[in-house]
Amino acid sequence: MRPLGARTWVVAGGRIPPDSEGPEPELTSREELSILNTAADAVELTLTIFHADRDPVGPYELHVEGERVRRVRVNDLIDPEAVPLGRDYAVVVLASAPVVVQHSHLDSRRGGLSSYSTLAFPVE
Amino acid sequence: MRPLGARTWVVAGGRIPPDSEGPEPELTSREELSILNTAADAVELTLTIFHADRDPVGPYELHVEGERVRRVRVNDLIDPEAVPLGRDYAVVVLASAPVVVQHSHLDSRRGGLSSYSTLAFPVE
Amino acid sequence: MRPLGARTWVVAGGRIPPDSEGPEPELTSREELSILNTAADAVELTLTIFHADRDPVGPYELHVEGERVRRVRVNDLIDPEAVPLGRDYAVVVLASAPVVVQHSHLDSRRGGLSSYSTLAFPVE
Amino acid sequence: MRPLGARTWVVAGGRIPPDSEGPEPELTSREELSILNTAADAVELTLTIFHADRDPVGPYELHVEGERVRRVRVNDLIDPEAVPLGRDYAVVVLASAPVVVQHSHLDSRRGGLSSYSTLAFPVE
Repeated sequence: MRPLGARTWVVAGGRIPPDSEGPEPELTSREELSILNTAADAVELTLTIFHADRDPVGPYELHVEGERVRRVRVNDLIDPEAVPLGRDYAVVVLASAPVVVQHSHLDSRRGGLSSYSTLAFPVE
Repeated sequence: MRPLGARTWVVAGGRIPPDSEGPEPELTSREELSILNTAADAVELTLTIFHADRDPVGPYELHVEGERVRRVRVNDLIDPEAVPLGRDYAVVVLASAPVVVQHSHLDSRRGGLSSYSTLAFPVE
Repeated sequence: MRPLGARTWVVAGGRIPPDSEGPEPELTSREELSILNTAADAVELTLTIFHADRDPVGPYELHVEGERVRRVRVNDLIDPEAVPLGRDYAVVVLASAPVVVQHSHLDSRRGGLSSYSTLAFPVE
Repeated sequence: MRPLGARTWVVAGGRIPPDSEGPEPELTSREELSILNTAADAVELTLTIFHADRDPVGPYELHVEGERVRRVRVNDLIDPEAVPLGRDYAVVVLASAPVVVQHSHLDSRRGGLSSYSTLAFPVE
């Protein structure tokens, strides 16, 4: 299939819930990036994490094989440094070829579940 | 009414919750695709399901009559094969004429309800 | 302020939860359309409701004053006929001047709350 | 990084839940605007709040430093006047340079959590 999507995507409203209730890792509060690469060739991604009160951190590097979807927990991005829980952040994703990026949120506090998912904003 | 929408739509962030609580089918955890065909003529759709760790699967074929909305549970897509619960997937929808595609999620675990719905990403 | 938005908007994934728990009308399960008219002049809207198994119904007519937001419960659209609870529907909104349209969902079943909101799809 | 996004953004479907349950401020029911400024220079924002039954109110002024994300509770916008809880509102954001704007909602009524987040609508 041909490459679908855009090479730059932005998520402005990140914040990982600071606590979790329930079995890990299935019900760990989290935020995730889902990246779809529809083309045959692998794609290299460079993520920059923006913060409220200090300079951006990056690059975080990701690799997505051809014709694969990859879903990454923001909680697990630790190189060059972990993204703090319960703090506002934003992400800019730069890709070496077109991809589609979606951002998902799960909050397991209070013994329930609250979740949402939104498309990232594509820049042309 | 004239055809509205686009012929290619992408959902990057699919994952059907692995468990459900409550009466079926109303409260079965699920993900769904809603496809609106505003035009008089029927539309043929070809879906490809992308996975994290193996080649894409398809085509899944759907038919939407003219001037109808059709909402399909991803859980019910079984030909050529079922989409596994609790696993990351993505979908590319190719339509024979413009449609609008929305992706919805319902999670009935823990005795509650958590839901979201997002537009798919239209490709031009 | 100048008119902002588009004159045609589409929501593909409508379905009003069939039951509610809690005090009405605050916690009645519902879906809503929010329409923002940023311009000085009033806008006239024509809604068409699409169904899964029968012809579209309309026009439903709405009026939004200049420089006002109007949020309408789909549950309350009764002329020419009510939109059935628990059934799939879609909406096409045609406006006499640019507006912005958002679709919201609240489900109060099971003694909790589940909600989401998405931009409608703008057609150019 | 270069400026990413748009200079005008619209949220049509605002309404802050009227009540909260749980510790403040972490679980206070709220709506928030997240604004990402990817460029080196600071951005000035002018917000106008639209209401259902009276004239728009503004300007609300915000400042976002270069290379920072800023997340603001709509509940905390008090100059020139507070945004009422439990009432429909909309927001137009005008920025002095491109930004990305996302709108988030958290409802802590009934002892649970319900949340969603959507991109604002970018105007070109």
